[in-house]
Amino acid sequence: MSEEEELSGYKGEALVAIRKAEAEIGDLIRITRNSQIYEGILIPRSEYGDEKHVVMKLKSGYNIGIRITPSTKIEKIGKGAKPTFAAAPPLERNPELPKISIISTGGTIASRVDYRTGAVRPALTANDLYSVVPELANIAQMDTQILFSLFSENITAKHWAEMAKAVSKKISEGVEGVVIAHGTDTMGYTAAALSFALQSLPVPVILVGSQRSADRPSSDAATNLIGAVTAAAKAPFAETAVAMHETPSDTSIVLHRGTKVRKCHTSRRDTFKSVNATPLARIQNQKIIMLTDEYRKRDPSRKLVLKPKFNKKVALLKFHPDMNPSMIDWCVEKEYKGIIIEGTGLGHVGSYSFEALRNAVQQNVVVGMTSQCIWGRINMNVYDQGRDLLALGVIPLEDMLPETATVKLMWIFGQTQDVEEAKKMLKINIAGEFLSRTLPEKQAMAER
Amino acid sequence: MSEEEELSGYKGEALVAIRKAEAEIGDLIRITRNSQIYEGILIPRSEYGDEKHVVMKLKSGYNIGIRITPSTKIEKIGKGAKPTFAAAPPLERNPELPKISIISTGGTIASRVDYRTGAVRPALTANDLYSVVPELANIAQMDTQILFSLFSENITAKHWAEMAKAVSKKISEGVEGVVIAHGTDTMGYTAAALSFALQSLPVPVILVGSQRSADRPSSDAATNLIGAVTAAAKAPFAETAVAMHETPSDTSIVLHRGTKVRKCHTSRRDTFKSVNATPLARIQNQKIIMLTDEYRKRDPSRKLVLKPKFNKKVALLKFHPDMNPSMIDWCVEKEYKGIIIEGTGLGHVGSYSFEALRNAVQQNVVVGMTSQCIWGRINMNVYDQGRDLLALGVIPLEDMLPETATVKLMWIFGQTQDVEEAKKMLKINIAGEFLSRTLPEKQAMAER
Repeated sequence: MSEEEELSGYKGEALVAIRKAEAEIGDLIRITRNSQIYEGILIPRSEYGDEKHVVMKLKSGYNIGIRITPSTKIEKIGKGAKPTFAAAPPLERNPELPKISIISTGGTIASRVDYRTGAVRPALTANDLYSVVPELANIAQMDTQILFSLFSENITAKHWAEMAKAVSKKISEGVEGVVIAHGTDTMGYTAAALSFALQSLPVPVILVGSQRSADRPSSDAATNLIGAVTAAAKAPFAETAVAMHETPSDTSIVLHRGTKVRKCHTSRRDTFKSVNATPLARIQNQKIIMLTDEYRKRDPSRKLVLKPKFNKKVALLKFHPDMNPSMIDWCVEKEYKGIIIEGTGLGHVGSYSFEALRNAVQQNVVVGMTSQCIWGRINMNVYDQGRDLLALGVIPLEDMLPETATVKLMWIFGQTQDVEEAKKMLKINIAGEFLSRTLPEKQAMAER
Repeated sequence: MSEEEELSGYKGEALVAIRKAEAEIGDLIRITRNSQIYEGILIPRSEYGDEKHVVMKLKSGYNIGIRITPSTKIEKIGKGAKPTFAAAPPLERNPELPKISIISTGGTIASRVDYRTGAVRPALTANDLYSVVPELANIAQMDTQILFSLFSENITAKHWAEMAKAVSKKISEGVEGVVIAHGTDTMGYTAAALSFALQSLPVPVILVGSQRSADRPSSDAATNLIGAVTAAAKAPFAETAVAMHETPSDTSIVLHRGTKVRKCHTSRRDTFKSVNATPLARIQNQKIIMLTDEYRKRDPSRKLVLKPKFNKKVALLKFHPDMNPSMIDWCVEKEYKGIIIEGTGLGHVGSYSFEALRNAVQQNVVVGMTSQCIWGRINMNVYDQGRDLLALGVIPLEDMLPETATVKLMWIFGQTQDVEEAKKMLKINIAGEFLSRTLPEKQAMAER
């Protein structure tokens, strides 16, 4: 690795100061400025960064950018711990245990070291995992595959397709469950995408992420991973689900159905919530407790139906007061196939958007209505303007999440180009995206 | 009223069938079709409706559209109860009680009769209110004003400005509090708008709505109104707040700060939640209990600062996988002043959007980052791509709601055209839109 790469991102004054201190990425440094002293690990700069700041990771785990002035002093006070990834000796696998696959796509759960040293090591081998989380060796025999190493905000429909194919391949090889390590940011979208792309699943497909990296004492990575592997190996259901903390404490892992789950907090470990639905199951004291009777049962003899195509010509538009209806016209001009509206309340938008919506529908754009309330169910029959929207051809999407609706419509237009067929598919329950009835108020509350 | 108006919305076969039955809007009718019998009240049709359906309100409160075929029979079985609005005899006002104003803008709370008969009567006089909710006469002396009669999804920035001016006028006349009756769909947006437009308030301004109309047994209209009037008359704070049910039961009303409140359920009575904040206060057994120490105290001698201008050239864009970055370019081309992004997690978007965002910032569009998680706080220093976005000039908006951020930026560009000034204003706490610190995890949980 050249020095240029080692100091990646730094330029100008900041680069000069770092070179003078003979520091490298990952080294422990001390910066003294205006009689303030900062100690931490030198981490790489963004390529869009300016020339004046040096970024370090403090002991607290937080990063800080410090402006370099002529009076700023940088010292190297410790050699960086280079990532070693020393492979643990191969464990003897217990041939009695179920075989599962772990497919890594990136995210915090799969990038244990990049916070500490700046080096990115996207995923771990099975042996690495066994050595870090020894409990796993008692639950399943694992094989691991690094499919991508992406921050999940960079994952798009083409990655969903790749993941679906990779899962399908593993299942055809006879594994009893698949775990997908994924960044949490868009894990809900991917869970919905795989729910549609992997139909008639014989075994469970479990997405798992972590909110705190494994180098932090509060990390949820190990607990979530144990939960996900347990579910893949032993759960009685065969659906796509998300495994994450149920509460801020480490006592239970909850499994959310892929089409009903949403990230609801920027940093909490129990950020994922089942919306308008009971979660599928809870794992507590290594036992899986089903929380609903309505699920597809595990049946390894069932034949998976793989439908991995998506069409990205679908927009999600969140309505807000004075939203410009020309944005809808723009989607029509750009030949979008579908628009999901995040309307207000029971499924409304300002009447100043009606003409644009009418035009979109007439131009064969499929328009579906969801609610920005997030919780609850669309009902466009209650108020005049809702009925107007129905009359215009806007399709009410019941209790479906806006994010799931967007993914579903992208998937539908991967299956058909026929608009009437697409509308029909949008309205029928394909992967549990509609709950057949509204939950009792108290129950819905508890899930929130 | 002409017959045409009375049968408003009906045409073609449906109109012929209704005329044959000599029925009018509001009449009780019976429709027999394929040996099924439906009884209900004939209600008006949407102007976008087809010619084949007749819409009736069933006893359950739900509306149903029935297709007219040659074999369908319609009978009028009862005369509609015309809205009477018989004025109650003027009550003797208790001059000891605080004077407050009720300004009506529309919405379910202010349109008691339109569900039953199709007639729209947007708001009630003080005497009507006293007769419907007699408790009010013991709380305050009220005057009422019908400002608009709008479904709240039709409310835009120009209405926010009108409301702010109307409130200012009432306050200058010496009232001790103002209640604004408003549809719930966009009440959160309006609450934020008034929080910015009405600065240095001397007395409280309380928005109130209802989730179930007053003709339904489960209506929350009266209880919410009593809570709002109590707060306007007696609350120790002088801020813009929303008064709604705290739980599904009628036991308490909660007051949410206008910049921290969001509609979180399509139909529940406790739909409004304070997000990333403790509510201001609770009203229980007619007592107001403050839930925070941080609030502006009521002080009738304080001089209100009215800043009612908004600029609608601000977009709210919700990021999703494969969101087309050209949508950002489109905002720049249309000379938008600002864009609020609803990013993922701690404040991210796919790197495929970076060039469009960089261009937007370079073209002097103010770009602010919020999270579609809704709960939690933006932190763009944790991951590389967050730091990239900061370096591009995207402004992290901490724990501000995306909806509040949109309204705030619309308001800012009503105050200044200077981009640097606008950025500064976006970052400072003007109306409690930022919480100074993150709530303890347990507390934030309870508020959710």
